[in-house]
Amino acid sequence: MTKPLFIRRASQLATLKGSSQKPLAGDQMKDLRIVEGGSLWIEDGVIISVGADEELAAKHRSQLQNAELIDADGCLVTPGLVDPHTHLVFAGTREDEFDMRLNGATYMEIMNSGGGIYATTKATQEASEELLYKESAARLDQFLLQGVTTVEAKSGYGLNLETELKQLRVAQRLQNEHAVDLVSTFMGAHAIPREYKENPDAFVDLIIHEMIPKVAELGLAEFNDVFCEHGVFTPAQSKRILEAGLDHGLHPKIHADEIEPYEGAELAAEVGAVSADHLLKASDKGIKRMAEKGVIATLLPGTAFFLMAESANGRKMIDTGVPVALSTDCNPGSSPTLSQQLIMNLGCVKMGMTPAEVLAAATINAAHAIKRGHLVGSLEEGKQADVVIFDLPNYKRLQYQYGVNHVKRVIKKGRTVVHQGRLV
Amino acid sequence: MTKPLFIRRASQLATLKGSSQKPLAGDQMKDLRIVEGGSLWIEDGVIISVGADEELAAKHRSQLQNAELIDADGCLVTPGLVDPHTHLVFAGTREDEFDMRLNGATYMEIMNSGGGIYATTKATQEASEELLYKESAARLDQFLLQGVTTVEAKSGYGLNLETELKQLRVAQRLQNEHAVDLVSTFMGAHAIPREYKENPDAFVDLIIHEMIPKVAELGLAEFNDVFCEHGVFTPAQSKRILEAGLDHGLHPKIHADEIEPYEGAELAAEVGAVSADHLLKASDKGIKRMAEKGVIATLLPGTAFFLMAESANGRKMIDTGVPVALSTDCNPGSSPTLSQQLIMNLGCVKMGMTPAEVLAAATINAAHAIKRGHLVGSLEEGKQADVVIFDLPNYKRLQYQYGVNHVKRVIKKGRTVVHQGRLV
Ligand SMILES: [Zn+2]
Ligand SMILES: [Zn+2]
Repeated sequence: MTKPLFIRRASQLATLKGSSQKPLAGDQMKDLRIVEGGSLWIEDGVIISVGADEELAAKHRSQLQNAELIDADGCLVTPGLVDPHTHLVFAGTREDEFDMRLNGATYMEIMNSGGGIYATTKATQEASEELLYKESAARLDQFLLQGVTTVEAKSGYGLNLETELKQLRVAQRLQNEHAVDLVSTFMGAHAIPREYKENPDAFVDLIIHEMIPKVAELGLAEFNDVFCEHGVFTPAQSKRILEAGLDHGLHPKIHADEIEPYEGAELAAEVGAVSADHLLKASDKGIKRMAEKGVIATLLPGTAFFLMAESANGRKMIDTGVPVALSTDCNPGSSPTLSQQLIMNLGCVKMGMTPAEVLAAATINAAHAIKRGHLVGSLEEGKQADVVIFDLPNYKRLQYQYGVNHVKRVIKKGRTVVHQGRLV
Repeated sequence: MTKPLFIRRASQLATLKGSSQKPLAGDQMKDLRIVEGGSLWIEDGVIISVGADEELAAKHRSQLQNAELIDADGCLVTPGLVDPHTHLVFAGTREDEFDMRLNGATYMEIMNSGGGIYATTKATQEASEELLYKESAARLDQFLLQGVTTVEAKSGYGLNLETELKQLRVAQRLQNEHAVDLVSTFMGAHAIPREYKENPDAFVDLIIHEMIPKVAELGLAEFNDVFCEHGVFTPAQSKRILEAGLDHGLHPKIHADEIEPYEGAELAAEVGAVSADHLLKASDKGIKRMAEKGVIATLLPGTAFFLMAESANGRKMIDTGVPVALSTDCNPGSSPTLSQQLIMNLGCVKMGMTPAEVLAAATINAAHAIKRGHLVGSLEEGKQADVVIFDLPNYKRLQYQYGVNHVKRVIKKGRTVVHQGRLV
């Protein structure tokens, strides 16, 4: 038994109470259920009580002397941030491509110089499992320093069974060994390998008949994702892949309508996807369908930022009733960031979301987008004690004072894992 | 005598050599004069030698045993970053305004609720000098943690002599007591006080006949800045104010063409301003004039980002031959950031500058924009030993992996002041 932990008198305690069953949608996203001067009582990694400080002090009077106290006076306390869409496990970086692009190189010139997704695929195929683990763990450290306590990680830089399994094993090992919780997604359908360019259906068959069954059998993923986009996987192919995943117990996710309108949002509603992600070019009809079916829109404004494109219309999606989540899309090609805090700022200035909405989107809605809403994403009795203490008096300041890491302390399962800018 | 400091074998040592006399312009901004595996020898806060590691080790052989060694293997080493345009000394924050804006409030609704620049003016007028010092010092700490070792700070939230002097005294005390070097700018002409709305020329007279002489007499500023904008100060008023400053030895700077084209760039060239800043709406003619006269364009992409506006066209200015510098514009209204690193990223993705150009813009050109090019901004023999060690192997990575603080160590005048995420 570890000591109880008593986090006291937060300037604002953003609890997001009452959201464990369903993601927040519409006006609900504006109400963070804040307790001013609020406190948290934690035992054995679980939140036992949440509320006014005097109440909690009275309730736990007998254990007070034995508890570890953290004074959160002047601070904002929130649930641990959740990142529901990353390509965390990869090898190699692509800063040369970024530099070429800014120096005026065309897409084809970059591809011909060995850039693009195949550069990462090659590097990931060639990397040892140990190296992949080490580099991914270093990225997870950064996530944690930024206040992110749960991260989804996709495979998809293998494009062959062997490498896909290698990526998923690395994620599994990180889940076992790293403080951050990982949630795994199989994404064999991330690109068409060059050798299947003339016959993409054969690659779809490979995914359906070999990869998905193997991944499911080994218990290496909970979700199944597909890049549904013109020139990658068609809606028909995407549907086959997602339904095959469902047959093996893998929940569907879609990279939808990122570059061109392609009815990805509609497909997400049709197959009952947990989330549709990107959605820069989603149709109004598709957005409405998502709202009706409760499909979460996981928006990735960092990707538009880095690719110098228009962001998805987060404002309109919320106003249409779609529950919106936010994510870094962390990957070496289109969004090499590790900061969910900056993503929240981008949600405000690039998508017209409010400071309250982006915090809901990066906590409880992000948790629901990876089926962890019952466990994390809000500060409620019985939930896992994943908590961030920000060195700021209110949640609006977090979005307003953009560009720096405001984390003062991160608590994962009741234990301090980040303090004053360093991992502990 | 402190020990010599030997920073060894940087993966990339970005020296920016040869730029101490004049800011870099045009293609010069693309050449960072990188030494791969390069080293720095520092004595008594001054750079003594720069170059290949073996060379330096041989040259300083007799002192080698006595030197403090820092291994920069795998790291990017650059000059300390310089921020040439901030409104550092202020009281109060305005996150409520930001929140109102995102919730759909109009400019007038915000003004009527007590927001806008007058909110900051009031808070700054009312704040004690001690409080102003404390809050500004905390911001400077953040600048330093982000690798910024020299910061320009403007007055301009006083709008009366007493408060303007208070702001400038705070900057002076920070210069004496804080590790970061400060450069002070008088900016009485930041807004028209409400009581002068009907007679702005009377306020211009007050600035010219009372404020400027007093500031100069007390030696509290080196620069004189004016907000030349429709509805604030006209080009004619701005010119009078800047010329009055010149008469008292204050170098001119201009907030130019931010919101509407107003021939601010042209005026900057005409009066021989050291820099013209903002320039979102600068005319082609004005940009050409600036290039001819060597006026530095200090661009502030964070402000456009936060105000959801189009950025200045940094790409075009560089291509026209204007030396470009970058800055946070740190202020509580339009750019509440403390991250010059994010500003460099914005320079790339919002203004089409290259990774090399933004680093030149945030070091040597920023130094020239505050007349410190001879002292800091490049790593050359005889210059002040302000150095940043980034936990990255190359300068492209710094721009590519956006959103996190990559500083590993900051050295100011030869002394480590930031190490592993903390002030030392
Ligand atoms: Zn993705
Ligand atoms: Zn300014």
